[in-house]
Amino acid sequence: MISKVLVANRGEIAVRIIRACKEMGIKTVAVYSEMDRDSLHVHIADESVCIGPAISTKSYLNMDSIISAALVMGADAIHPGYGFLSENTTFVKRCRDEDIIFIGPTEDHIIKMGDKAQARKTMIEAGVPVVPGMEGSITDAKEALVEAEKIGFPVMIKAVSGGGGRGMRVARNRDEFIKGFSVAQSESAVAFGDNSMYVEKLIENPRHVEVQIIADSHGNVVHLGERDCSLQRRNQKVLEEAPSALIDDQIRKQMGDAAVKGAKAVGYVNAGTVEFLVDKDKNFYFIEMNTRIQVEHPVTEMVTGVDIVREQIMIASGEKLSFTQEDIKINGHAIECRINAEDVSHGFRPCPGTVNDFYFPGGYGVRVDSHIYSGYKIPPTYDSMIGKLIVWGRNRHEAINRMKRVLDETIVMGIETNIDFQREILSDEFFVENKFDTGFIDRKMFGAGHK
Amino acid sequence: MISKVLVANRGEIAVRIIRACKEMGIKTVAVYSEMDRDSLHVHIADESVCIGPAISTKSYLNMDSIISAALVMGADAIHPGYGFLSENTTFVKRCRDEDIIFIGPTEDHIIKMGDKAQARKTMIEAGVPVVPGMEGSITDAKEALVEAEKIGFPVMIKAVSGGGGRGMRVARNRDEFIKGFSVAQSESAVAFGDNSMYVEKLIENPRHVEVQIIADSHGNVVHLGERDCSLQRRNQKVLEEAPSALIDDQIRKQMGDAAVKGAKAVGYVNAGTVEFLVDKDKNFYFIEMNTRIQVEHPVTEMVTGVDIVREQIMIASGEKLSFTQEDIKINGHAIECRINAEDVSHGFRPCPGTVNDFYFPGGYGVRVDSHIYSGYKIPPTYDSMIGKLIVWGRNRHEAINRMKRVLDETIVMGIETNIDFQREILSDEFFVENKFDTGFIDRKMFGAGHK
Repeated sequence: MISKVLVANRGEIAVRIIRACKEMGIKTVAVYSEMDRDSLHVHIADESVCIGPAISTKSYLNMDSIISAALVMGADAIHPGYGFLSENTTFVKRCRDEDIIFIGPTEDHIIKMGDKAQARKTMIEAGVPVVPGMEGSITDAKEALVEAEKIGFPVMIKAVSGGGGRGMRVARNRDEFIKGFSVAQSESAVAFGDNSMYVEKLIENPRHVEVQIIADSHGNVVHLGERDCSLQRRNQKVLEEAPSALIDDQIRKQMGDAAVKGAKAVGYVNAGTVEFLVDKDKNFYFIEMNTRIQVEHPVTEMVTGVDIVREQIMIASGEKLSFTQEDIKINGHAIECRINAEDVSHGFRPCPGTVNDFYFPGGYGVRVDSHIYSGYKIPPTYDSMIGKLIVWGRNRHEAINRMKRVLDETIVMGIETNIDFQREILSDEFFVENKFDTGFIDRKMFGAGHK
Repeated sequence: MISKVLVANRGEIAVRIIRACKEMGIKTVAVYSEMDRDSLHVHIADESVCIGPAISTKSYLNMDSIISAALVMGADAIHPGYGFLSENTTFVKRCRDEDIIFIGPTEDHIIKMGDKAQARKTMIEAGVPVVPGMEGSITDAKEALVEAEKIGFPVMIKAVSGGGGRGMRVARNRDEFIKGFSVAQSESAVAFGDNSMYVEKLIENPRHVEVQIIADSHGNVVHLGERDCSLQRRNQKVLEEAPSALIDDQIRKQMGDAAVKGAKAVGYVNAGTVEFLVDKDKNFYFIEMNTRIQVEHPVTEMVTGVDIVREQIMIASGEKLSFTQEDIKINGHAIECRINAEDVSHGFRPCPGTVNDFYFPGGYGVRVDSHIYSGYKIPPTYDSMIGKLIVWGRNRHEAINRMKRVLDETIVMGIETNIDFQREILSDEFFVENKFDTGFIDRKMFGAGHK
């Protein structure tokens, strides 16, 4: 059994992981940049090590520092959280070379799922539906147009190395395609140093629905149902819920089975998320697999009663899953609102500063995951999320009303936040009536930021 | 359906009730004494009314003020919370006279269960086991001794009007009985103006286990399992859990059935608690029924998923219960720690003052019910409870470890609290190994207060 975990992250996820370790009787080592000296994760860990200056590349992405810290402090495992080094195969390998357990999948799993073309191929072979598209990649615009016409418009042009919306364009006809391909390719060349592209069918007005899977090292793979993460702003999730209000039990089972099949196809171990787009007719298409814990994991925990971080640690210790697929029942409905320090009226501009005072409410069915405290200085260096408010209700209606109540009571003084924006979403009739897709937020033009 | 609720209480339970109303779309009116002007329940209610000076008899017990406030503000219902007017039959009658719905049982239920002798008689008739004891009451010491010898030593001498430990004495033999009866009777005469006594068998080293019941006005009565409230200090509960680790499923069912039978025997409506003592051999004996919501209701909510305050409001609106006995499944284990502003090392002396800063932690399986905020002044006038920390785990072991983690992270600055004392309980091997009874805390001599 793992006895001491170094948490190679910061913010709310570092706090989340340290809490799980404490509850399991496992010692914890926090790492922090010079900017994060007074962070909550540093305060609540048993031990802590400064790993470099504020800038991530010199601290939270600094493998030498982190591995050294683990060796010096005698940590026998590292939990990477999300972002930073969580899907970095070099880091996973370096942990293994030093006999440190990496709490997550192996390099092989990350490689197989990180390469989009290979992941797609794996899924096709496993019988999981994928978005119809061309084989392999392409650099020549004319050849690409031939592929586009084979697939049929509208199509999505995507940079192979792309991410975060960059190197992507929609094309509804030949003219748009020729223009869009050229622009997307240039973007990719500049941003990622790679001009290889691919073309796939555009799934119009889809929902983003993802299945949480969890797999031990003994070949057991269980899914924990799905999350609906369609509410996104520029590909950043804003509000997530479990289960998805769109799909029925039959589709739920099909998607769950598909996710398990996909995970089994690569011999996946630890927690992972299989992401799908779902169209209006409830056809679902694999888009990618995330090989780490995700920000939105609490909504799944609220409806299944499974502590996913705890399970990750148990699995990394070599334990078998303590439950089977039949044990997993989806109970009620959960919603998560990400609370960000940002100025919604100025294009969602991050708004670092000092939290003079704050109040996160509690009560029945409420969970708060956050790293802020009164007097905490939100650094400008990292992401702007300051916490997650999560509620549970017997059904979606109850959960929405509970979240509205929670947002009404929440107070954060000293900085701008997106709390009012979240409140607007929860009161939007299209959201309430389950009539939304991934374009919802950008179309709704909430705030001046969309002008 | 009720449209506006006046909450005739303060502190965390007022906050709890207002939150439930908000989530149900019901308007709320807070009432407050001059001392509580800046209380959280006043801030979060839709409307608020000052009902008098600090002293409870002139504010939270002032029926004229409260009824007037309800009429002026147009509240169609009053939720009394616990304590104050929650079991006051005059108040219930006055509400009815003014056509205001009292969210709770009727006067008749309160009378029948409030009179200990009558409640005992009702339970015997319903076939519910009670503590063996004499019939009726007695004032003469010699006659009482005859009764005591019939019952068999050890016995408990109790003032009929007693409460909070006053007018009670244990007697293990004739000499102790003669002395104890005289002292207890004098105490009762002074404290309650009543010298009538009764004598019952002493249940040695019992557990206090209570069953939550909920009954609609259509004759449906369901129990929500039991809570173990054995950890008490001078008859004040300190830490509660659900389910009880002492009893097995068979006893659980017997106790649940007994509680339902008792409630049905008086045609009970709304939420109530049937309290039992359980002896070493797991025999259980009815002691009393509380005809109101209780402080410790959240542990039941955590293991059943039933929002008891919401159900109270639905029942008062005339709705049928939305679940049957078969729907109620006990899921996992919950523990509540009452956090009090008190100085444990000085005899648990209440410690009012200003909360300069505080941190109540969150995360997986954690619920916080509290009315404090940074800068809040805890008045010296009311009870010293400043909040309840509640955790859920898959089992008792997990729940204990989670609560320890939560207590470790909790910070309350500016006043003394019992947080360290709660931490000691959770680390006590007898508590952890489920070897405790109602005398646990007083025997353990935690802190200097027991010297």
